[in-house]
Amino acid sequence: MDILSYQSDFIAYLESQKFSREPKNLYEPIDYILQLGGKRIRPMLTLIASDIFSGDYKQALPAALAVEVFHNFTLVHDDIMDDAPLRRGNETVHEKWNINTAILSGDAMLILAYQYFENYEPVVFQKLAQLFSKTALEVCDGQQLDVDFETRNDVTIDEYIKMITLKTSVLVAAALKMGAIVAKADEDQAQHLYDYGLNLGIAFQLQDDYLDTFGDPESFGKQVGGDIIENKKTYLYLKALEVSNSNDKENLLNLYNGKEKNNSEKIDTVSTIFRNNNIPEETFKLIEYYTNKAFESLDHLNISEQQKQGLRVFGENLMSRKV
Amino acid sequence: MDILSYQSDFIAYLESQKFSREPKNLYEPIDYILQLGGKRIRPMLTLIASDIFSGDYKQALPAALAVEVFHNFTLVHDDIMDDAPLRRGNETVHEKWNINTAILSGDAMLILAYQYFENYEPVVFQKLAQLFSKTALEVCDGQQLDVDFETRNDVTIDEYIKMITLKTSVLVAAALKMGAIVAKADEDQAQHLYDYGLNLGIAFQLQDDYLDTFGDPESFGKQVGGDIIENKKTYLYLKALEVSNSNDKENLLNLYNGKEKNNSEKIDTVSTIFRNNNIPEETFKLIEYYTNKAFESLDHLNISEQQKQGLRVFGENLMSRKV
Repeated sequence: MDILSYQSDFIAYLESQKFSREPKNLYEPIDYILQLGGKRIRPMLTLIASDIFSGDYKQALPAALAVEVFHNFTLVHDDIMDDAPLRRGNETVHEKWNINTAILSGDAMLILAYQYFENYEPVVFQKLAQLFSKTALEVCDGQQLDVDFETRNDVTIDEYIKMITLKTSVLVAAALKMGAIVAKADEDQAQHLYDYGLNLGIAFQLQDDYLDTFGDPESFGKQVGGDIIENKKTYLYLKALEVSNSNDKENLLNLYNGKEKNNSEKIDTVSTIFRNNNIPEETFKLIEYYTNKAFESLDHLNISEQQKQGLRVFGENLMSRKV
Repeated sequence: MDILSYQSDFIAYLESQKFSREPKNLYEPIDYILQLGGKRIRPMLTLIASDIFSGDYKQALPAALAVEVFHNFTLVHDDIMDDAPLRRGNETVHEKWNINTAILSGDAMLILAYQYFENYEPVVFQKLAQLFSKTALEVCDGQQLDVDFETRNDVTIDEYIKMITLKTSVLVAAALKMGAIVAKADEDQAQHLYDYGLNLGIAFQLQDDYLDTFGDPESFGKQVGGDIIENKKTYLYLKALEVSNSNDKENLLNLYNGKEKNNSEKIDTVSTIFRNNNIPEETFKLIEYYTNKAFESLDHLNISEQQKQGLRVFGENLMSRKV
């Protein structure tokens, strides 16, 4: 398992695919968003999975790129819906071009993602496309739930976990399973890897929620406190509502009800309430719970101890990130 | 070839697929747009093609529905881009809900279309999905060209034909070829049917352009003169620029440059220029050219004379429509 090779080979493959087709107003935004970087976690997972089950990760490059193109498609369309000006420190597609371009280029990306599966023979193609469609629809479901939660005041923690599972984790899980499918692993083995990814994805998103409020502003990449400004009903908020006294609770409900005049004051007050109620510790506990659940899936894999260790280290590195 | 059976079986199949999944804010708009009706020409063509080559049209119902769902997906996203308030006499999705809903429900429709191909075994599945992806991307290309043409003053007739080929005809052609694929027709036979559809699709769009200006306001579902109001560079306009005298030409260029104060006056002036320059006759000639080109493809098909006649009648009915 050589993460650096995966990374450089993936970047080289991505570069070789330059989407410089005509009409250029449709394909330039696609090039743009894919060149903005990002951690490329999902395609890495596809390559890792293929390597583990077949010793050949390069055969999984097209599937890995499909996953990355799809992930970036969701970013382009979500950024329109969230009215987000920045992505990875650069202008979002609808800001740099316009909303219509962001809609249409996004549509083309979703189709391009499917086309990468055409590199595989029919049975593998069908399995990949089928898992991909199921996953992509779940991601849409998750995005819709996220939107629905904005105007609901009775969101439960279970519902929140379901939402992030759909919006984030299923794609992490599917990225791994696609690598297993390319490597022609047994269905039950592929499924255990899927479960590993699903729980790791939940832990990853909870970590993201934590960092959004408590991350280092120097290194975090996004605006610290962004979730608080936008009244996002994250695990931190929902747990605080559950455990805090009536005073803190009332305070939180008021602060999340409408637009606060002073953002930095709001962030201060909310994060103090979170701290006073041990929300960081509660979040760490839940992250650990899902990380351990992920690692348990590894016990069912018929792979070498060294490979399991590699997957554990990958997961731990992901969870120890500060950014 | 029994068009009425195709139609009723298709509608029954569509009804049986009710997209009443959760979250309802995502799937209700999909149900809504698919229930608005429309002529269902594309799915009919998929059923016709399957019937011709295998005597079994019912096996093509999932592919036919994929085509119809995709077509409606393009309408939902195009209506956002065109800021259109009405579709088939009813509110568009982004008007009835909002733009974010129209984006996300549209995305889900594109994925749902792919899922219908899962009803077929791997080799047929791959052929269908491959043709579908190619076609869907071409439709995006065509939509982008259409947008690009709005701000260009040097669009040629050839470019216009290319744009409508991508935006409209390739899907008509692919709808037919998908039926042939389901029926396991030979590739060259499927391709001749594709060519029939491609040219028929061009003729169909030219007819649409003609009716947009000269159709009967009583029966033409859209606002007559809409293309003129929106300064659309259709064949009628481009041909008029080519053949008219300098006075008419200057008049046209001025009228298409910016928003005219009085729409009905603008429609009157433009359609008079079109008439004076025999543009209706020129358009009929071109429609006939592409219709005949379509019918020539039928000569290469190894099907009965009766079946060829059926395809000819279908094409003629399509071309003799007044609405």
